[in-house]
Amino acid sequence: MSLLVVGSVAFDSVETPHGVVKDALGGAATFFSYAASYFTPVRLVGVVGDDFPAAHREMLEARGIDTSGLSIEQGGKTFRWRGKYEGDMNTAETLEVHLNVLGTFNPDLSPKFAETPFVFLANGSPNMQRRVLAQAKERKLAVADTMNFWIETQRDELNALLREVDGLVLNDAEARMLTDEINLVRAGWKVLDLGPRFVVIKKGEHGAMFLSRTESFVMPAFPLAEVVDPTGAGDSFAGGFMGYLAATGKTDAAALKTAMAYGTVVASFNVEDFSLRRFQRTDRAEIDRRLETYRTMMSF
Amino acid sequence: MSLLVVGSVAFDSVETPHGVVKDALGGAATFFSYAASYFTPVRLVGVVGDDFPAAHREMLEARGIDTSGLSIEQGGKTFRWRGKYEGDMNTAETLEVHLNVLGTFNPDLSPKFAETPFVFLANGSPNMQRRVLAQAKERKLAVADTMNFWIETQRDELNALLREVDGLVLNDAEARMLTDEINLVRAGWKVLDLGPRFVVIKKGEHGAMFLSRTESFVMPAFPLAEVVDPTGAGDSFAGGFMGYLAATGKTDAAALKTAMAYGTVVASFNVEDFSLRRFQRTDRAEIDRRLETYRTMMSF
Repeated sequence: MSLLVVGSVAFDSVETPHGVVKDALGGAATFFSYAASYFTPVRLVGVVGDDFPAAHREMLEARGIDTSGLSIEQGGKTFRWRGKYEGDMNTAETLEVHLNVLGTFNPDLSPKFAETPFVFLANGSPNMQRRVLAQAKERKLAVADTMNFWIETQRDELNALLREVDGLVLNDAEARMLTDEINLVRAGWKVLDLGPRFVVIKKGEHGAMFLSRTESFVMPAFPLAEVVDPTGAGDSFAGGFMGYLAATGKTDAAALKTAMAYGTVVASFNVEDFSLRRFQRTDRAEIDRRLETYRTMMSF
Repeated sequence: MSLLVVGSVAFDSVETPHGVVKDALGGAATFFSYAASYFTPVRLVGVVGDDFPAAHREMLEARGIDTSGLSIEQGGKTFRWRGKYEGDMNTAETLEVHLNVLGTFNPDLSPKFAETPFVFLANGSPNMQRRVLAQAKERKLAVADTMNFWIETQRDELNALLREVDGLVLNDAEARMLTDEINLVRAGWKVLDLGPRFVVIKKGEHGAMFLSRTESFVMPAFPLAEVVDPTGAGDSFAGGFMGYLAATGKTDAAALKTAMAYGTVVASFNVEDFSLRRFQRTDRAEIDRRLETYRTMMSF
């Protein structure tokens, strides 16, 4: 089945101990789409400025990503983020953010896109996320991401969104902020009280945890000897997770668990190079080989 | 097969967000022994003062722990540690340390103990660890723990020890300090260069990683909704790990991986209450049930 993602498309300038990139293709919807494209056709909804090279769109289209929902705002500039990672590279220091055309992003889905069964609302304003969700009339599974900014400034709107989605994906610091709970299992339970039937708490280099009323899954990160750039790891995780589910059309416990493993493995490729570079050098066969290695590392 | 542990027996005074205990039975060799006692007979070597209650020794003996190597120094006082955990409880703040009789601890093994096939050298001075190791003539597997203090102050002695043991168990911060390497996979590889054929890096609430020249295993921690007191978690992990290996008599990759899982699960019981309290309320059957739950949480 096909998969819709709504979120940012960006130019990222990133500095890590392994190097720098300037104005590289990034953004949550970009990383998500590419990660999911190993599994299923993807429909991308986003906005860019007229500074966005046609080659980027062509590259995404060549991956089976339908970019008809990526609108170009004439006279506008694409969202830009500049950040830096140091030490264990677990958290980014944001140096500059220019929202540009993303500041007024509030998309309408085409009739075709509105029928997509699997929907991912990447990080964005909860009101925008809700408005998109309301248009996705045929959805079978809707999952949202969010971030500290929305938790702090638009709590009521976020709570309304949480009553409407099936799942929430967020990182450990965000889960703690959202629930005022240090213990992540309890934080996860409190998220479930807010509405979603499952929550995935991403812990960066420490893996991820899935909680529903009846299931708990824990997955370590795939161990890597070199993390070059963590930018987009969480969105790549979500892309692998949702991509696998959409490809199988399933949302049962076994599928969700395998989806967690695929999300972990796909994210492990993403962080091995800047921007989409490592993704562009891999394929589903290599992903599946690493999935088997990962399985072996944990099974006893 | 039987299992020898050499290390501290202590009185711990601990404060966590969940309560306080004063002069509770603790120490690396104590947690290790109790954890291992679910799997195999244990031989404990340590020293206490004449303030050590006979009831503690009887309790350990009742668990199948041979305490004939636990010497009482007349007129001396047992090692005391006072510490505090806050927030996510991942690191202890040490408030007081009184080495007391542990300051001159340098044991001789009885002829019977010297024949033990599985040997664990809990944290202690590398010279003492080496001297004990030299006495364990019949050893099949020798594993050591260490800590930041020895890494900083007795590096040559520690390096000598590392050339003589089969395995090293240490936490993530210690692995980074020992190798000057932030990435834990690379840190693990550098530990292997120092001598051991395997290294286990414990990451507290984030699980543990095993590395040898040919194998990598990663295990998340067992997710808990309430961590009451992390004191002894690492030693309990090591006890479950070594206890399982000694019980099976095996040291191949499959056994080492299952041992990692048992170590993780046994440690998860330890942190659910202060001192040995949770251990005293569990048994091998409950440990095996949690191991199956843990397996289910990760297998896909």
